[in-house]
Formats: sequence, structure tokens, C-alpha cells
Amino acid sequence: ASPQWAAFDAAYFQSYSHVGIHEEMIKDHVRTDTYRTAIMRLQNFISGKVVIDVGCGTGILSIFCALAGAKRVYAVEASDIAVQANEVVKTNNLSDKVIVLHGRVEEVTIEEKVDVIISEWMGYMLVYESMLGSVIFARDKWLKPGGLILPSHATLYMAPVTHSDRYSESIDFWRDVYGIDMSAMLPLAKQCAFEEPSVETITGENVLTWPSVVKYVDCYNVSAQELEIITAKYRFESMMRAPLHGFAFWFDVEFNGPAMFSNSHMNDLYSHDSSQSKRKEAIVLSTAPEDAPTHWQQTLLYFFDPIDLQQDQVIEGSVTLSQSQENPRFLNIHLEYSSGGRSFVKQSVMR
Amino acid sequence: ASPQWAAFDAAYFQSYSHVGIHEEMIKDHVRTDTYRTAIMRLQNFISGKVVIDVGCGTGILSIFCALAGAKRVYAVEASDIAVQANEVVKTNNLSDKVIVLHGRVEEVTIEEKVDVIISEWMGYMLVYESMLGSVIFARDKWLKPGGLILPSHATLYMAPVTHSDRYSESIDFWRDVYGIDMSAMLPLAKQCAFEEPSVETITGENVLTWPSVVKYVDCYNVSAQELEIITAKYRFESMMRAPLHGFAFWFDVEFNGPAMFSNSHMNDLYSHDSSQSKRKEAIVLSTAPEDAPTHWQQTLLYFFDPIDLQQDQVIEGSVTLSQSQENPRFLNIHLEYSSGGRSFVKQSVMR
Repeated sequence: ASPQWAAFDAAYFQSYSHVGIHEEMIKDHVRTDTYRTAIMRLQNFISGKVVIDVGCGTGILSIFCALAGAKRVYAVEASDIAVQANEVVKTNNLSDKVIVLHGRVEEVTIEEKVDVIISEWMGYMLVYESMLGSVIFARDKWLKPGGLILPSHATLYMAPVTHSDRYSESIDFWRDVYGIDMSAMLPLAKQCAFEEPSVETITGENVLTWPSVVKYVDCYNVSAQELEIITAKYRFESMMRAPLHGFAFWFDVEFNGPAMFSNSHMNDLYSHDSSQSKRKEAIVLSTAPEDAPTHWQQTLLYFFDPIDLQQDQVIEGSVTLSQSQENPRFLNIHLEYSSGGRSFVKQSVMR
Repeated sequence: ASPQWAAFDAAYFQSYSHVGIHEEMIKDHVRTDTYRTAIMRLQNFISGKVVIDVGCGTGILSIFCALAGAKRVYAVEASDIAVQANEVVKTNNLSDKVIVLHGRVEEVTIEEKVDVIISEWMGYMLVYESMLGSVIFARDKWLKPGGLILPSHATLYMAPVTHSDRYSESIDFWRDVYGIDMSAMLPLAKQCAFEEPSVETITGENVLTWPSVVKYVDCYNVSAQELEIITAKYRFESMMRAPLHGFAFWFDVEFNGPAMFSNSHMNDLYSHDSSQSKRKEAIVLSTAPEDAPTHWQQTLLYFFDPIDLQQDQVIEGSVTLSQSQENPRFLNIHLEYSSGGRSFVKQSVMR
């Protein structure tokens, strides 16, 4: 017997994970390299300008901006890691350029307008516990007209997935354990493994067809209100015969300069060909299953029982993401899906 | 930004980990195979006899005993997984032999003496949150004279370790992050990574010399009182020149039949040669770094700063494990160590 839960205790996180989380994020090279590349590629928009970094953590993105020539960077961080961020800035002789503000972005004082807002605000499923609301707040309060927001756009996707290995490992496992029939465990095993969303890494091979867009966010124009309830319909045709085990969610964010932004962008998104060509010009941080894994992985909503799909079989329905009443940092996920004449509803909470 | 802590929330564990913990333990083949082998090898002591399984979980060890011919098995389990254990017993048509008792071993009613006590009671560092007290309770209340306890003996070891990769990854990492000097993070990084014990898998290559015994437990004679405070002195001579990063703790347990038990056993333990030959006859479940990894891994106590050791340099001191006043399920670890004329004290808590 080995009581794992104790290791994940709140007290533990107040100590270890505090630094551990920052270490993990910085070591996520897909994340950090893409931000750095975007800053360097958009250096013309940053050099000599004033920047806010919303939720700067250890200050690494603020320092990238200072090294790209920013005149001044307001590095805003509510957690106590701001103390270390300030020390890092001093060590690197950037105190004249990077001003660490220890407080919530909603409460700090910044007495000038800014040219650039940078933030790494994305959570699991894009919006889970995300800080996008703080970015919107900063934009409305301080961003000059024509200013730059990095990332500029974000898209949440979903797609049907097959994942027999995972299902088998957690569920079918109990059918024969050292020759003993432990299938009495199945109902509880399904509930424990698949009631709530699961953050894990899948690959392109698990995905049954092209993804559908759940939410497209234009950071220049999005309002806090439209993020409160996100709802989308979807319709998929399976490209193969396979058991459908559930849906995967992932996101990407783009780093477009103001000039690259056009109104036709939204329309292009649903067309795969133009999406491909778009990616060639834009800098994209993708957390898709077919791309290199990141610390966000993918978020999976599994069914308790798989649905056997034929090739071209249609799966359709809707998904609604909303703040939990129980705890505002939790995310309620209401999923409706129909296939082969049967309809289902799955309600889950990301805690 | 990705808020990991939320995924490890208490509510999460009440759902997922409940089954997940049992799945992990059963899938630890070193653990499960060794128990099964011991039961089959000691079948002569079990067949036709009455058994108690202390903390039966899903009931797998109880079923192994029934399949080995036990006349009756009392499968005692305090957590709600007892409901599933009972269903598993029914499915396997063993309801006449295996009696699942849903309750604490200290509170259930068993109206006969028993021949065998089996239990998988070992926690991290052997004694962390372990159920050995419940095994002692069962022994004193129900075990017939000459009865069998499985496992029969347990030994907690410690040894000095070197682990530059780990130290470098968590600590030196901050010295150069994308060309930025983030060494201002070092004090907090050391505190977060190394203040508390760390459960992780190391290998024999990390171990600098032969281990020292911290505690030898003879399950036939151990008292609850002698487990309250465990204290041991140690003295090591490093077999190589290397940075000393801390100490590793691990344990093994033996499954000896009553006949194999002798009073000379204790004296043999400190001699490596006889320990080797002992292992050939006894069935041993080992969690040592040089053996196959288990879900217990090893428990590491790291220093904030490594000590450079010369070959044959002596490290000596003492370790004391005791129940925390703050929370009785926590383990206080008081470590004293001296080397090269300097002395240190490290106080930590396993939560």
C-alpha cells in the first residue's frame, strides 16, 4: 500500500511546485522558443516601445522583450515569484528597463499607455483557469490604438478520437488480473478514469478526422463576457472504421503583427487549405496531437463505453464550456453527442 | 501558464485515484508477483488454514490465498473499495471461503483464531503511513502461536548517493536559461526541490557504498511502541570520489515460513556475504536501487548543496524517524551528518 495522495497535498505545492511549475513552463521548449521567436520576429514593433507582460512569472518573456530593444517593460505578477523575477532582472542589469510590479494586473498602477501586451495566459483546453480576462483588462486600460497583442489570436479545437490502448489499460485490464475475473471493478474504474476530463498526450494517429473549431479568439476584440459561456456545434465524419472513445481538445495561438491581421481571417479558419498556407506566414504555438508535445498536452473527454464507428459515420452534437457555480476557477463541460441514431449527454467538471 | 495544482486537488483523488491506486499496485509486478510466489511457495502453511488479509484493497491477495487452498480468508478493508472486493469474490465463486469485512481491522469482529496473517502494509520509506500497526494489532488479537505472518521481516536501508543529473536539472538549470542568468532563482529552487523528501527512482550507479540498516522489523515480535521513534546511527566510507547529493532510503521485506525463522537472523543482517546467501533461500520483495523498480521507488533526502567526497572519505551521523505532532500521518525525519570536519542537520517532513 502506498498513499500517493499525500504527495500531492496542498502544502507540498506551496513549496515545490511553485518553482516546479516555472521550471516546467520554461523547459517546454515549444512554448518558450515560440514566444522568443515571435518577439525576435516582431522586433520592429517592440524596439523602443513600452510593453506590459501580464503574469510574468520568473520574468523570462519580459527579459526577451528588453533584449529585443523595448524601452520599458512592466512585468506584472501577482504570485510571490515576482520577488525572484525582480532579482533576475537586477542580475541581468535590466532594472532600468524592466519594472516588476508585484500585484494583480487589475490592481497595479501604470501611468502610461503601452504599445505591446505580451502574456502567456493559456490554460488547459485554452480557457481553463486562463488569465485571458486579465489580458483583456490590460488591453482596455493601457493599450494604445494600433498596439500589438502577443499572442494575437487563439483557437480551441476538438476532434473525435480512438484510443484502444488507453481504454484497455484502465478498463479491460480488470477483466483478467492474474487469471482472476475482476470485472466487478469495471463500473467504478470507468467512473474514476473517465468521469472528469483527462490531460494527457495523444498523437495524430488517435484522431479520427479533421478538427472542428470550438472557439476562435481575436485578442484585439474579444470581450470578457463572450468567454463566460462558450458553446459550439460540431459535425464529424469518421475517416475510418474504429471505436470512438471520446473527444480531444487542444488549441493553438498565433503571433501576428497588427499589419498581418485582416477581417477575412475568421472566414479562412474553417478551410483547411487556407489554414495550411496561413500557418506558413504566421508564428503559431500549437498544442495539436500531430505537433510536438507541450506541457499543455491535450485534454480528453472519454465516454464510459466506446461507440463502434463505420467509415464516414457521422458524429454530431454540441459542447458548452462555462464557469462552475461551485467554484469559479472550475470549468463545467456539457457535451452532447449523437451517432448511429443514439444520443448521449456527458456532463463533467475540470477542477 | 498551466495550473497543475488543480489537477491534484482532493476532489480529484476521491474519484480517480481511488481505483488508480489499486491499478498501480496490482500492475507493480514486482510487488504482486512476489506476494503470489510467496503464497504459492508457502502453500503447505496456508492450505486448509484460516487467514486474515489486513487491508485487502480489491481482494487480490485474499483470492490468491483462497486459490492456494485456504479454508477461510477474512479480507479486511476500511475504505469503500471493500464493496468491489466483495463483488470480485462473488464473481469468482469464492464467497464460501473469502469473507470481506468492511471496516478497520481494529473494529471488525472475527470469532476465531487464525493461522496466517497476510498484509501489504509497506509505505514509502517502509514506515510512512504504513499499516504495520494494524498488522501488529491483528497478530496480538488473532494469530495462533506458531502462526505465519507474510511478510515476516522488513528492513529499512539508507545509503549515500550522488546524482549530478538530478541536481543539475533542478538547480544548475537556472544559471543559464536561454542565455539569461537566472541564478537569483537558486535559493528558492533548492528549497522547493530539496526541502522535503523526494520519491523517485534511482539506480545502483547513484549509490556510493553499501547501505546501512536503519531498522530491522521482525513482524512476529515487533511492538507498536518501538515504531513510534526509529533512530539509527550510520557510518559510510565512499567507494569513489564523487559529489554527495544526499541519502537514499529503501526497504525490502521477506516472506519466511515459521521454520525458516531463527534467532541468528538478526546478527547475519549486517554481513553482506550471509545476506547474499540468505536471499537465495528466502523470498524477498526488494525496492533497492539495484533491483527492478517498483511503485515505491526510493525516497531521497537531498542536501541543498553537495559535498565533494574523496575516495574512502567517511560520512557519519544519525537519522531519526518519528510521527509528526502537526499531523500523525506525517513523518518527521531528523538527519545529522558529518563529513570532512563539517557537521550538518537537516530536518524534513514527509507529508
